[in-house]
Amino acid sequence: MVNTQSGSVGLVEPSIARFDTPLELACGRTLDAFELVYETYGELNAQRSNAILICHALSGHHHAAGFYPGEQKPGWWDTHIGPGKSIDTRRYFVVALNNLGGCHGSTGPTSINPATGRIWGPDFPLMTVTDWVESQARLADHLGIQRFAAVIGGSLGGMQVLQWSLAYPDRLAHAVVIAATPKLSAQNIAFNEVARQAIRSDPEFHDGWYAEHDTLPRRGLRLARMVGHITYLSELAMGAKFGRDVRNELNFGYGVEFEIESYLRYQGESFSNRFDANTYLLMTKALDYFDPAGACDGDLAAALAPAQCRFLVVSFSTDWRFAPERSKELVDALMLAGKRVSYANVDSPHGHDAFLMPHPRYDTVLGGFLRHAGDTLSLPRAEDE
Amino acid sequence: MVNTQSGSVGLVEPSIARFDTPLELACGRTLDAFELVYETYGELNAQRSNAILICHALSGHHHAAGFYPGEQKPGWWDTHIGPGKSIDTRRYFVVALNNLGGCHGSTGPTSINPATGRIWGPDFPLMTVTDWVESQARLADHLGIQRFAAVIGGSLGGMQVLQWSLAYPDRLAHAVVIAATPKLSAQNIAFNEVARQAIRSDPEFHDGWYAEHDTLPRRGLRLARMVGHITYLSELAMGAKFGRDVRNELNFGYGVEFEIESYLRYQGESFSNRFDANTYLLMTKALDYFDPAGACDGDLAAALAPAQCRFLVVSFSTDWRFAPERSKELVDALMLAGKRVSYANVDSPHGHDAFLMPHPRYDTVLGGFLRHAGDTLSLPRAEDE
Repeated sequence: MVNTQSGSVGLVEPSIARFDTPLELACGRTLDAFELVYETYGELNAQRSNAILICHALSGHHHAAGFYPGEQKPGWWDTHIGPGKSIDTRRYFVVALNNLGGCHGSTGPTSINPATGRIWGPDFPLMTVTDWVESQARLADHLGIQRFAAVIGGSLGGMQVLQWSLAYPDRLAHAVVIAATPKLSAQNIAFNEVARQAIRSDPEFHDGWYAEHDTLPRRGLRLARMVGHITYLSELAMGAKFGRDVRNELNFGYGVEFEIESYLRYQGESFSNRFDANTYLLMTKALDYFDPAGACDGDLAAALAPAQCRFLVVSFSTDWRFAPERSKELVDALMLAGKRVSYANVDSPHGHDAFLMPHPRYDTVLGGFLRHAGDTLSLPRAEDE
Repeated sequence: MVNTQSGSVGLVEPSIARFDTPLELACGRTLDAFELVYETYGELNAQRSNAILICHALSGHHHAAGFYPGEQKPGWWDTHIGPGKSIDTRRYFVVALNNLGGCHGSTGPTSINPATGRIWGPDFPLMTVTDWVESQARLADHLGIQRFAAVIGGSLGGMQVLQWSLAYPDRLAHAVVIAATPKLSAQNIAFNEVARQAIRSDPEFHDGWYAEHDTLPRRGLRLARMVGHITYLSELAMGAKFGRDVRNELNFGYGVEFEIESYLRYQGESFSNRFDANTYLLMTKALDYFDPAGACDGDLAAALAPAQCRFLVVSFSTDWRFAPERSKELVDALMLAGKRVSYANVDSPHGHDAFLMPHPRYDTVLGGFLRHAGDTLSLPRAEDE
């Protein structure tokens, strides 16, 4: 499947796995069957010991690296996944999926509900991070992977990594939790709630049945994404990139005047045409609900007790969505729980979005951790490693 | 008019001043006539030297202190205005108005446009801070006040204070700029743009002619206010007040689950029923446009050269809408320009909203500054002062 070019995994194509054993969900409902769409990069070794699972964030998907035929932009984490990159596909077999409830090919609100013959829409059950990890474990079974060399994810993806370490302590050797938090703050929930209200109050939302009304709640999704983007960028990066630059002359009206307005409108518009609103709502709820310490009266160290893997926690200095303090909370709790954890707060001006970008220290830390991980697992090194 | 009770200015009532000399606006248009609604507290002395002007913020108005008959809650700055309070009405004559373009009684989008006989709606010209100061100078003339003892305001009100010091340097002795900034950042503009898009994309907005359609863009205003509230509160205060407290049991649906959701929905709902959408839009634009240094190639100290008054600048430690750094920028530029300036960064957990709240150090600094101001203006002290 992989056509290795220098630094790129090259052309890739998605696969679909179907699961027919019912999946019991945290909300109390059951999914009788479901499909997950995924991509893989690199080769699974004979011992099946070199697999890495990539967990995606709010608007991510299975296309993490490489290109589809004719595609101009590579997958969303191509800066980090590829031959010779920090997640080195010469050594590792990388699996990236679209989460259950997503809108990129896995079973979700845009899929057909077999019980009714119409699309699930808002009837699709709300997902939690726990549910996702259960479904990902099924995918691992399907691929014959008993134990991942590492599970890696940023933001909401980092929460899945953490859940993996607790739910299946013997099924991963290393956990990389990037730009994440052990739970949302009131402010985090507040931003999610604004996004949800924007979508749900859009008259084109029709209580989630927009598809049956042959429409889309574009206005709501646009606003949700605009709010999101403000929280993804640092004030610093936004200032440096746009400042108070005026795009058109000040017109004393409501057309675009400042560059930042143009940027936000473009981001909102483009997102509203490609992302499913019910999926967006469901993803924000999964974020809100995640709180592994909740089951231990808020004692995070106690909640982390089951974990056996080695951890790398990475945060970014100007991230204010999930600030470095939130990662430090996690690191402290891991230390208190006696776990093996390394931590790096990477100096970057790019806010939360930094987790998607190249950065020398980020590369060094992530690449170094995974190189060592490979050595401890006795995976052969690539020649120049 | 004022019925002094202990610490309260007591019962108050608004007045209206009408102005028939055309007002040329920054946008190039002219208002032939306009009205301003205002309240006063305390007594203007014979020398007319003890007047203080209060400039309001985005959603403020003229009812800054005291009570209307039957009213349960006093005016919006009652904590600071009254006999024996930091803005002491025993010594000072306090004037508070609703800005031009407002929706509380001054001429604005909800007023009748005499040229058409119908309400102004979206045809009402966009206001700038400069325009407001011009109209406030007319109000000062109307009241026979040549020179204010002080002009005081928080947030957008602080910008008006700054503009007063530049446009009419000989018409104020003291300027108090609270929780403000000499210009918005890209992030500040971004939040305003989300609020504007929320209102303008509401199908009930009808390009601003909602009144003629006998409707209101409530959904949009609700969202705008929710976003606003997130920026008014500190993450700390929001966390302390709401945390992850669950209001109802987690229901795996989109009803209220967390307390913070309930709070935001309530704030949005109540605002959407009492505030005019066209006014809200116009106020956010006035914020975006303010940039006195713009005329001096970004050199704020050069822009501040005309000022003659003495300044007090106040910021609040957890304010992230207009962070202490923004006040320090202003203080530094005032110093560089050789102006007399005092500065206090008040330690408060309440974010931007702190400027509306009581706080011992805030009271001391503001009260102390105004007591000294009164002494330098030879205003008689109240007995216990």
